[in-house]
Amino acid sequence: MLNVNGDAVLTTLRTLAGFGAVGSGVCRPALSPADLAARRWLAGEMEKIGLRATIDAVGNLYGAAPGADRSVLIGSHSDSVPTGGWLDGTLGLAYGLEIARAWMEAHPGAPVGIDLIDFSDEEGRFLSCLGSRSFCGDLPGLPAGFAEDAATTGLGSAPPIRLDPQRHRAFFEAHIEQGPRLEAAGLPIGVVTGIFGMRRYAVRFDGRADHAGTTPIALRRDAARLLYRFADACHHRFRQAGSTDSVWNLGKVSLQPGAVNVVVERGELLLEFRDLDPVALDSLSAALAMLVDEFDGQEGVRVSLEEAGRLAPVSLDATLQGLVADAADARGAGSMPLPSGAIHDAMVLARSVPTAMLFVPSIGGRSHTPVEDTRADDIVLGAHVLAQAVFTCAESL
Amino acid sequence: MLNVNGDAVLTTLRTLAGFGAVGSGVCRPALSPADLAARRWLAGEMEKIGLRATIDAVGNLYGAAPGADRSVLIGSHSDSVPTGGWLDGTLGLAYGLEIARAWMEAHPGAPVGIDLIDFSDEEGRFLSCLGSRSFCGDLPGLPAGFAEDAATTGLGSAPPIRLDPQRHRAFFEAHIEQGPRLEAAGLPIGVVTGIFGMRRYAVRFDGRADHAGTTPIALRRDAARLLYRFADACHHRFRQAGSTDSVWNLGKVSLQPGAVNVVVERGELLLEFRDLDPVALDSLSAALAMLVDEFDGQEGVRVSLEEAGRLAPVSLDATLQGLVADAADARGAGSMPLPSGAIHDAMVLARSVPTAMLFVPSIGGRSHTPVEDTRADDIVLGAHVLAQAVFTCAESL
Repeated sequence: MLNVNGDAVLTTLRTLAGFGAVGSGVCRPALSPADLAARRWLAGEMEKIGLRATIDAVGNLYGAAPGADRSVLIGSHSDSVPTGGWLDGTLGLAYGLEIARAWMEAHPGAPVGIDLIDFSDEEGRFLSCLGSRSFCGDLPGLPAGFAEDAATTGLGSAPPIRLDPQRHRAFFEAHIEQGPRLEAAGLPIGVVTGIFGMRRYAVRFDGRADHAGTTPIALRRDAARLLYRFADACHHRFRQAGSTDSVWNLGKVSLQPGAVNVVVERGELLLEFRDLDPVALDSLSAALAMLVDEFDGQEGVRVSLEEAGRLAPVSLDATLQGLVADAADARGAGSMPLPSGAIHDAMVLARSVPTAMLFVPSIGGRSHTPVEDTRADDIVLGAHVLAQAVFTCAESL
Repeated sequence: MLNVNGDAVLTTLRTLAGFGAVGSGVCRPALSPADLAARRWLAGEMEKIGLRATIDAVGNLYGAAPGADRSVLIGSHSDSVPTGGWLDGTLGLAYGLEIARAWMEAHPGAPVGIDLIDFSDEEGRFLSCLGSRSFCGDLPGLPAGFAEDAATTGLGSAPPIRLDPQRHRAFFEAHIEQGPRLEAAGLPIGVVTGIFGMRRYAVRFDGRADHAGTTPIALRRDAARLLYRFADACHHRFRQAGSTDSVWNLGKVSLQPGAVNVVVERGELLLEFRDLDPVALDSLSAALAMLVDEFDGQEGVRVSLEEAGRLAPVSLDATLQGLVADAADARGAGSMPLPSGAIHDAMVLARSVPTAMLFVPSIGGRSHTPVEDTRADDIVLGAHVLAQAVFTCAESL
């Protein structure tokens, strides 16, 4: 029996939480001094357990099992959003470090290893999933500003660490759920079926600025008025058009000139929707386009639509999902299949290598905030379940 | 017959438009170098026609008819909004200068004079109607920043020029309409019945920030979603609650955190409504409060209301309105009574002295923009009508 130590996982997590600590949360954006300090500390921990650690020019930190010619890869990210919590990303790294340690302890010098990777900039300070894209050869060039910032960090110019299909036979990422579904179901383990695809759109409303005291209501072309009505209608239409899993958000509005006493000339609504099912995404896109057609020209306001981003949904590997579910059963831990509404590095990896994700519950469903937390016994239980799934996978290679 | 020269009015307007000119518009905020240069030039023009010009410490420029012991006061303002047009405020000054000139030419040394005043900061760079408030003794103290800015302008520390009820028996302000009603009616002269009162409110929506990918729609407390629905409902309720003249605007929204991928935690909607009838204003306030009560708590979002400003409506002097209407009839100029939806210095003056306003049409109803304009023959006609009303008034004193 492999000896995975839950206390070691918690200690790693608490130590990582000290880098860029702000109250109970962390501020550790990619390439920040706190981010790099955390990576360098983690590189040292990898070396201590016998992995060979390297950091490349984009900030990816990779710990390779020496002597192995094939491996299970475990990974996540140590960068955070500016007002992040202590578990987002670090959970998967802390699990991976302890699981790799236990594996090497039990199988020193084995041809099958467990490698660990800490991807750079998952949170998209420069580009969402920058590190995993680079790792998978899916990064045509560095985004604006990255090279300038990287030059001041002492990251160096090591060649990119790349996915090696001969070596990396499977990828596992554990993560906090960042949502309320496991907590609501009272279950400690989520087996992730896939990662939601996403579409973003900008809806633009062009009316006319007028003095809000002197212009009768009937003579206005009020862009804000139509925007409010449109936004309200979106909720109703999306509910009809989407699947039961569909989510959407109308979280950003800008109004010009945006003064209490001037009729709004231009409004822009930035919205997104997500689903695992591409048919549902198409249906939501069609409903949005139809709504734009219906509203365009009403009350003298032009309404236009522009796509602002698109990510295809990704299904995760069924066999590996089975390993996670079986491992949960073996530990007596209740689990449920669920999709991930959030983007993860696993979304990038899944296009190139069999990939699985395990979720543990987020208290109150909260994430990307300093109050983000998970019960300690859920954290430890997740480590044991992931270890069992990874070991079973490694033993099959 | 008094000889009012329309060309002189146009020349004054064109000269004033040169101070702070930006394209076809002007940028002449209160206390800016362009504003002070315009005032000093106008002071010189006052002196040329025989008025005694003084500028006080707040920037009010006053031209007193020498030898008079009572007067009709004409005034408006030469400051502008940052992206202003050439006629807002200056129209009333150009009329006043020419009317005072014509009166003095016809009645040199008469005990009844025509005085002219150019109020400071009507547009509220520091405080809306700052100059007229100071003139009427309704300015408890200078607003923040004013004294610091004034110290660098060389304005001096002359004691405030004040309304003298023994001398100033009536106040006339001519202005562009800044709205589309005269143009829509095809009439060149508006006789202003009163100035809309205004109420402003901040409506606050408190929900919860959540990850927009991971949080099912049914488990959200989405402040933006309720805000959109509330804003849409306001338009319907205000239409029912207000008078046919009521106007309202929901022109400013802020969402926190305001990101496309985060459910909105807090939203704030800044709105106003205006009407001449205090009963209509009360009815609108009641409708708003009822709507807040109805929405508060829906979908887990708290909705609260805070009053952000209030101005009582002001009725203008009926006798003076009659003089303007009669003068229009006498010139064969079609006129209509209408309220002012915009605030003017006349709103402040009307509380202390019989006050009238005359409007000329704004092309397309546009104002506070460089495209603000009025047909030249309408400008000249307005000067003749105002002159006739003012002369009749002066002759009655």
